[in-house]
Amino acid sequence: MSRTVYLNGDYLSEEDAKISIFDRSFLMADGVYEVTSVLGGKLIDFAGHATRLERSLSELGMQKPEAFDDLLEIHRELVRLNEIDEGMIYLQVSRGSAGDRDFAYPSDDVKPTLVLFTQSKPGLADNPAAKVGIKIISIEDQRWGRRDIKTTQLLYPSMGKMMAKAAGCDDAWMVEDGNVTEGTSNNAYIVKGNTIITRHLGNEILHGITRAAVLRFAKEAQMKVEERSFSIEEAQGADEAFITSASTFVMPVVEVDGAAIGTGKPGNIAARLREIYLDESRKAAI
Amino acid sequence: MSRTVYLNGDYLSEEDAKISIFDRSFLMADGVYEVTSVLGGKLIDFAGHATRLERSLSELGMQKPEAFDDLLEIHRELVRLNEIDEGMIYLQVSRGSAGDRDFAYPSDDVKPTLVLFTQSKPGLADNPAAKVGIKIISIEDQRWGRRDIKTTQLLYPSMGKMMAKAAGCDDAWMVEDGNVTEGTSNNAYIVKGNTIITRHLGNEILHGITRAAVLRFAKEAQMKVEERSFSIEEAQGADEAFITSASTFVMPVVEVDGAAIGTGKPGNIAARLREIYLDESRKAAI
Repeated sequence: MSRTVYLNGDYLSEEDAKISIFDRSFLMADGVYEVTSVLGGKLIDFAGHATRLERSLSELGMQKPEAFDDLLEIHRELVRLNEIDEGMIYLQVSRGSAGDRDFAYPSDDVKPTLVLFTQSKPGLADNPAAKVGIKIISIEDQRWGRRDIKTTQLLYPSMGKMMAKAAGCDDAWMVEDGNVTEGTSNNAYIVKGNTIITRHLGNEILHGITRAAVLRFAKEAQMKVEERSFSIEEAQGADEAFITSASTFVMPVVEVDGAAIGTGKPGNIAARLREIYLDESRKAAI
Repeated sequence: MSRTVYLNGDYLSEEDAKISIFDRSFLMADGVYEVTSVLGGKLIDFAGHATRLERSLSELGMQKPEAFDDLLEIHRELVRLNEIDEGMIYLQVSRGSAGDRDFAYPSDDVKPTLVLFTQSKPGLADNPAAKVGIKIISIEDQRWGRRDIKTTQLLYPSMGKMMAKAAGCDDAWMVEDGNVTEGTSNNAYIVKGNTIITRHLGNEILHGITRAAVLRFAKEAQMKVEERSFSIEEAQGADEAFITSASTFVMPVVEVDGAAIGTGKPGNIAARLREIYLDESRKAAI
């Protein structure tokens, strides 16, 4: 069955959803995006994603799409039309097409392009990888300087994912000035005793919506949280490690650059945070 | 008159040239490009651009488009169809569309997207800016680490162009670790006495096709060339400054961060190099 996707006000069959070759996201990566998870047909942390989208647009001086205030409704309509029980909704705003190519931004009468589509992932919450954990390699962080803005400049994360695959691993953690910034599409954590350590916020990493929720739940569960840099060496000596993202929730990491983390099996704190996150998210889903 | 553009084997009206929302250049900036200038209806340094394109594709593990060996013919056909006397031909190769979004590269049966379009710029060679020179601001270089690959990750150069405009200037030079890397879409040069100074090649800058030609012509004209880093302060104390690119050729710079360069007027060496470059390029155009 062909998906129904949303493009600039229209609900279309995915095969018919096409954009101009002059669209600025196509020509110069001038676009921002969000991915919102769906569990039980409901949206997880929609408000968080909408707020971050608004910030990304603002940081880049990009117009809000006219349909900005209808985004919740559009998300829900796509869930309904495509009968999504578990999965994701991808949203992208491009600065649009001025009908030609120019580094300078177009005038305000050029409207942004708004695209949304669903990805059905039955079993997303019961992902078997959460039972065995994932393996990580480290790579140099070669991305641009404003990773706090969720732009479509994803070539390097994509290259990183391929480097991980080539090494027989699942993902890559990026390292800058000796410390881990984040994963290719997720935030990175280590655990020492009862303390969860994850990089502090700044321009160097994405301000994960799932990160914020997980840290809040951790504190509520009396776990200690340290927001600071850590190295690959410190990770390799940690008791546990994990990642968070909108689509993997909390996912245990059992190996970093060939070294087993802790027992080499998913840790208790990661497992407990995953459970809490899924429970609380389902309760708050809209 | 509507332009005729090229998209995956077809010559189309520009309004009909559309790509899937799942194209990887749109979703994750997974694309590379080239811009070739046209003077007198002929292509400037086509071979140089084709060679660099091949290298960009190879560095990213991207398939060559099936039409790779026909690129000269396609460029010429677009020049003919759109009656281009002076202007540019833009070419982009995207890793293509697998019909969904995934960080991992698609399998080899997903073919790259190949797009070319013309930009008619009558008077390109007689650009009046070359008579008065352009004004530059400096900005921090926030781009990713592999600027030697000509990818479509152009959001930061685009932001830089807007910062320059906001400051009443024409372009920005990017600075990293205290030294100039390059302009937003051009290589940067200063002149001291009879010596032309421009940053050495490496991953930090694009290996300009026009840069290579201009340095060759400079050496042939008995000018001294030093390929090394220089700072904004050194530029401000130089006798001349200029940029090179496929579409601006050699363009004098008369001001950097508010400080006049030399006399504040275009320098003799920049003017002479522009003349030589245009003469030689016209002779070698195909």
